[in-house]
Amino acid sequence: MKNTIIAEKETKYKILPILKERYSPRVFSDTPVSELELRTLFEAGRWAPSSYNRQPWRIIWGLKGSKTYDRIFECLSEFNQSWAKNAPVLLLSAFKKVTDDGQENFHALHDLGLFMGNVTVQAQHLGIALHQMAGVLYDKAKKDFNFPDEYHIATSVAIGYYGGDKKNLPIDLREEENPENRTRLVQQEFTFNGNYIQKEELKSSKDKIDSHKKQIMKKINDLD
Amino acid sequence: MKNTIIAEKETKYKILPILKERYSPRVFSDTPVSELELRTLFEAGRWAPSSYNRQPWRIIWGLKGSKTYDRIFECLSEFNQSWAKNAPVLLLSAFKKVTDDGQENFHALHDLGLFMGNVTVQAQHLGIALHQMAGVLYDKAKKDFNFPDEYHIATSVAIGYYGGDKKNLPIDLREEENPENRTRLVQQEFTFNGNYIQKEELKSSKDKIDSHKKQIMKKINDLD
Ligand SMILES: Cc1cc2nc3c(=O)[nH]c(=O)nc-3n(C[C@H](O)[C@H](O)[C@H](O)COP(=O)(O)O)c2cc1C
Ligand SMILES: Cc1cc2nc3c(=O)[nH]c(=O)nc-3n(C[C@H](O)[C@H](O)[C@H](O)COP(=O)(O)O)c2cc1C
Repeated sequence: MKNTIIAEKETKYKILPILKERYSPRVFSDTPVSELELRTLFEAGRWAPSSYNRQPWRIIWGLKGSKTYDRIFECLSEFNQSWAKNAPVLLLSAFKKVTDDGQENFHALHDLGLFMGNVTVQAQHLGIALHQMAGVLYDKAKKDFNFPDEYHIATSVAIGYYGGDKKNLPIDLREEENPENRTRLVQQEFTFNGNYIQKEELKSSKDKIDSHKKQIMKKINDLD
Repeated sequence: MKNTIIAEKETKYKILPILKERYSPRVFSDTPVSELELRTLFEAGRWAPSSYNRQPWRIIWGLKGSKTYDRIFECLSEFNQSWAKNAPVLLLSAFKKVTDDGQENFHALHDLGLFMGNVTVQAQHLGIALHQMAGVLYDKAKKDFNFPDEYHIATSVAIGYYGGDKKNLPIDLREEENPENRTRLVQQEFTFNGNYIQKEELKSSKDKIDSHKKQIMKKINDLD
């Protein structure tokens, strides 16, 4: 039942620059993304693992200036439309909810995430950024793009080269365009070498350790 | 409503070796995976994107020989136990189903997939392989590891260095240990530059094109 609750310096774990330097911009360079580049990203996704190799991922894609692009854009929430209009590429991602036998494929949504993870890494290698979006009119998108019942829309994704100009953003979004400010949970909040521990319990055991430490320090100081 | 149905040579899309060379082995080298290496993998996952930066991923991990490892092993299906017993590391992956306001977080399972995608890429870079497993006793795992109701177990994952000996596998699994035989859908089956098209329709339009081609070829031959 041992659990890791030691404080940790996060920076000591060296990860690939391709993973470390990625972020989700809301502006993109004017440089267009070609169909060949996009197909290279899909090829990366294509080789992702999936439960029973079911490959439940489905992608609708449109290049800026095309009818498909505009139709995808119409499926975005108002907030996402306010910035995604500058993206050179828009996608809709969907997944097949059932197996070939008509059973629920519980892992389909998970496996779409694995697909998109591969796409993201290949994109980053090419200097291309993704910004995934949950703010999508799912029912409209499913209907508009002719998906049968056993499919479900998961996200829209804005894609383009890094290096856009913040001035193209609504004022309130400009200061959010700051990859240095990205935050994450510390590892001890989401990894457990034993039972899961609630954040509250974690905090209280950390407090206990801290107060224990203070007592020891006090004793040491008292010795002086 | 244009849709891409041109036949394509998949090999023309050059993707990163780190993505191309990955596969899911059922045997692993004897070389152990250290806690530092494992934490480096988690660090890679930690920087994955997620909906509203919610980071819904939770990981239980155990190194071979530890009590936690054995407890995770007890949660695997019989089939997965038959080969995963040789893995130097076992994980359970779980996700928080709800937002901090208690609403359903639909993208939680998807975002766990993004996390695991990052872990996989960092692992591959270190020569370490993952084999993800859906064959898990979910309810037992959730209970055994003390997860509250708002969490759900998604997978178990076997981890170790590539390079294991097939002889450690049950006979019927040995011939499946063949990364050259991996198959995937072609891009036109899962990417659409316009409306989604069912595989059956795709096939029939391909047949139409093929028969049209044949007619033209016949006409050309008749000219000779
Ligand atoms: C599934 C998913 C849905 C998201 N939805 C939106 C969205 O609708 N609008 C938005 O501006 N950002 C959205 N994001 C971006 C996240 O807020 C972002 O990934 C997170 O804050 C971490 O920042 P980073 O990707 O720059 O590391 C989404 C991300 C994911 C993975
Ligand atoms: C979510 C998930 C669940 C899986 N479940 C199992 C499993 O229970 N047992 C198993 O032997 N393989 C399992 N696999 C491995 C897949 O069969 C494998 O990823 C797929 O066949 C593609 O092969 P590759 O990963 O070597 O490219 C799973 C993979 C994923 C992503």
